Amino acid sequence: MAKGLPKRSENYSEWYNEIVKRADLAENSAVRGCMVIKPYGFAIWEKMQRALDDMFKATGHQNAYFPLFVPKSFLEKEEEHAEGFAKECAVVTHYRLKADPDGKGLIVDPNAKLEEELIIRPTSEAVIWNTYRGWIQSWRDLPLLINQWCNIVRWEMRTRLFLRTAEFLWQEGHTAHATEQEAIEETERMLGVYATFAEDWIGLPVLKGLKSPNERFAGAIETYCIEALMQDGKALQSGTSHFLGQNFAKAFDVKFVNKENQLEYAWATSWGVSTRLMGALIMAHSDDNGLVLPPKLAPIQVVIVPIYKSPEDLATISEKVAPLVQDLRAAGISVKYDDNDNQRSGWKFAEYELRGVPVRLGIGMRDLESGAVEVARRDNLTKESRPLEGIVDHIAGLLDDIQRNIYQKALTFREENTFRVDTWDEFTEQIEKGGFILAHWDGTAETEESIKEKTKATIRCIPLDAPHEDGKCVLTGAPSTRRVVFARAY
Amino acid sequence: MAKGLPKRSENYSEWYNEIVKRADLAENSAVRGCMVIKPYGFAIWEKMQRALDDMFKATGHQNAYFPLFVPKSFLEKEEEHAEGFAKECAVVTHYRLKADPDGKGLIVDPNAKLEEELIIRPTSEAVIWNTYRGWIQSWRDLPLLINQWCNIVRWEMRTRLFLRTAEFLWQEGHTAHATEQEAIEETERMLGVYATFAEDWIGLPVLKGLKSPNERFAGAIETYCIEALMQDGKALQSGTSHFLGQNFAKAFDVKFVNKENQLEYAWATSWGVSTRLMGALIMAHSDDNGLVLPPKLAPIQVVIVPIYKSPEDLATISEKVAPLVQDLRAAGISVKYDDNDNQRSGWKFAEYELRGVPVRLGIGMRDLESGAVEVARRDNLTKESRPLEGIVDHIAGLLDDIQRNIYQKALTFREENTFRVDTWDEFTEQIEKGGFILAHWDGTAETEESIKEKTKATIRCIPLDAPHEDGKCVLTGAPSTRRVVFARAY
Repeated sequence: MAKGLPKRSENYSEWYNEIVKRADLAENSAVRGCMVIKPYGFAIWEKMQRALDDMFKATGHQNAYFPLFVPKSFLEKEEEHAEGFAKECAVVTHYRLKADPDGKGLIVDPNAKLEEELIIRPTSEAVIWNTYRGWIQSWRDLPLLINQWCNIVRWEMRTRLFLRTAEFLWQEGHTAHATEQEAIEETERMLGVYATFAEDWIGLPVLKGLKSPNERFAGAIETYCIEALMQDGKALQSGTSHFLGQNFAKAFDVKFVNKENQLEYAWATSWGVSTRLMGALIMAHSDDNGLVLPPKLAPIQVVIVPIYKSPEDLATISEKVAPLVQDLRAAGISVKYDDNDNQRSGWKFAEYELRGVPVRLGIGMRDLESGAVEVARRDNLTKESRPLEGIVDHIAGLLDDIQRNIYQKALTFREENTFRVDTWDEFTEQIEKGGFILAHWDGTAETEESIKEKTKATIRCIPLDAPHEDGKCVLTGAPSTRRVVFARAY
Repeated sequence: MAKGLPKRSENYSEWYNEIVKRADLAENSAVRGCMVIKPYGFAIWEKMQRALDDMFKATGHQNAYFPLFVPKSFLEKEEEHAEGFAKECAVVTHYRLKADPDGKGLIVDPNAKLEEELIIRPTSEAVIWNTYRGWIQSWRDLPLLINQWCNIVRWEMRTRLFLRTAEFLWQEGHTAHATEQEAIEETERMLGVYATFAEDWIGLPVLKGLKSPNERFAGAIETYCIEALMQDGKALQSGTSHFLGQNFAKAFDVKFVNKENQLEYAWATSWGVSTRLMGALIMAHSDDNGLVLPPKLAPIQVVIVPIYKSPEDLATISEKVAPLVQDLRAAGISVKYDDNDNQRSGWKFAEYELRGVPVRLGIGMRDLESGAVEVARRDNLTKESRPLEGIVDHIAGLLDDIQRNIYQKALTFREENTFRVDTWDEFTEQIEKGGFILAHWDGTAETEESIKEKTKATIRCIPLDAPHEDGKCVLTGAPSTRRVVFARAY
């Protein structure tokens, strides 16, 4: 076990921070609220990007790039949108520094004040819809299916690595459609892509649902989301997909001639996932020994550690390992052979455990003699001796197995921590213990607000598959027709 | 020929602008000096990124991500660096907007002024070396070989799409080494990677050389560069690799314990290429009909255009084309079958020519009967009828051939436009006509500056392979030991 890693049961928050730090995923930078994503963490993010990008392209989307800056007047155009983001905007006011006439160093040149302030994009609807005005004239120009990968700045006051940072990385899809129906279909399609990615790649079971009006994206008609449950019983919103109606088309005057030869405003969607998914990945699977990575996103899927006493033994082992490494790579498995002589094998075992490498192979002289290798699984910490013969196939199967297992484990956890609650007493008692609470709600913003004030719980979503069920609001007793999901959330 | 595209010989600058616009590569945004990279342009950039990223990883580098913001005090720490970038810094001074009490809209909240201004990164040496201080303690932590892909802001007054924009995309490598020698080797290695990429992927022959002290990166001991010649006879700096010595280690106090157990400052390099390479690609190969793309970077390598009169003919052709498309894809060739019925085939021919698609296949009913297809090459505008049988192999070979040919054509152009010049009269005469001028220079900044003032020509580089040759400075007549390369440049 890694020395000094806090236990989840004792201090979940510190446990998370320490894993992020000690597994070399990220660190706080000297710039308030901004993080440095370290190479090991970034390699995981790159794998997420690649997988998502492939899924976006398979659903007909293309990448593009729009400016970092949003002129203040653009942000103002969609009123709710402006209101929603105004409080967390980083504002560029000047475009030049000059030598300080009164001393050393640089000062902002007062003569280089911008006529109009520029906001660092907190999201790009404004800039993109202003651009779309030039791109959309006819129904033939639609649908316009565009995505961009970029950095975003929202001046958050309380930040946490990956979960909430002033600058983060994300992708944002922005699509334009000829009809309301098509736009809604797109919104739902991309929610489906996110859910599939979360489950198949991160191994993260998610609920698909709608946000309540209170929790909608500023400027959206409807916000869809995927919600996951972390091991401390708190929810993490893991992705959102917004149906924006014609709000942005109207704000930026984006009209097209439809098939009936009439001018009409375009229909919009936007959808995004961010480096927050790294937080979800870490918190969903890791244990008191450190990170647990789903094989599909692990930068190193298999690590091979030689166990030896003499340089001669190491040479003998290395010679035997070389073709194994080649065979694993040929099978599309990423593998590292760690023959670093500065660290002992025990140290390496703990280190790769901490870093969540799914499979570890230990090979010593006795293994060589018996044609065997020790295979250790990171997910359930089991190990067994296996014949070297046929080991590549075995490992390929094992990686699939681990991928399935960590998903299944997270799903079981969620099921065991999802509660149907019918009274306010039960609600207040359960919310302290954590988990998803399925309860009736009277559908009003006031009740939602009141529950939040009393318990810090929010409506995570109205599940898309929620069955009709007559009941009474858990707080007010007013009639309700379906249960919604409450939880405390990140 | 595309209607109205200006001719290179008549207005090179307009020709460039029109190609960028009409081939749907990029456009100016509403934000001064910032561009929108459109999907077709971005698809080329993505291919560049992928190829470069693979080369960086093959040479042992890892990606990471560092903050967008550079605190002003960080920028100040390396004096030359600060001076070099101060004049083009976008400065964040506030972190909140609020409703305008005197009217509609938003104003900058005066109560949300930052204690210290943040600069949008014009390059990341300062932020990264401040971070490296925490990462480097021992020679065992070295070399540190890190790259990041990100956006950069330099407040340029005169901008041009791809060539010079206030915001641009790039990669920046930042490495730390235990010895001067290793750092120099890294600087040269990455210059080599850039040269290989330029030549093998963009089809762009480049000179490898050193910048004169005047043209060095602010804060570098030595700047290496690759320089290419555009069709108008102007040079384009296409990539730089800097040996930074210990300047940044000293500015940010990055010391390590070396093998002799002594504290020492780390040695640094940085190197970058940007979306400027898109400008190089466009200008190096394109012609009066539009863009010419190297097959290795073309989003669509082969377009198939059906030539038909009736819907029945189209159906017949489409049926025949389907397996061909499959076979081409199976061979790793990206192909588009354009059966859009809204446009005539002649229009499509011109359109794909404008967009630089390397190979166009035209298939009509008569072709089907004779088992043939018309194969048109974008690079030399030739076409021929070929049997459908074996066409996939033919096209694979053709793409290789086009890739070689456009490189060779650009190389021939450069050779024909490189001049050895020994007198000032020749120099001033030749510089008006354009091209690379190989001339002697006395090695002083004054002479370089004077030549620039008189002719607008700068020293593009001191070629790494420049042979020793005694001569006299083309301006001053002072002794010189080798020729350097002069040109007017973008």
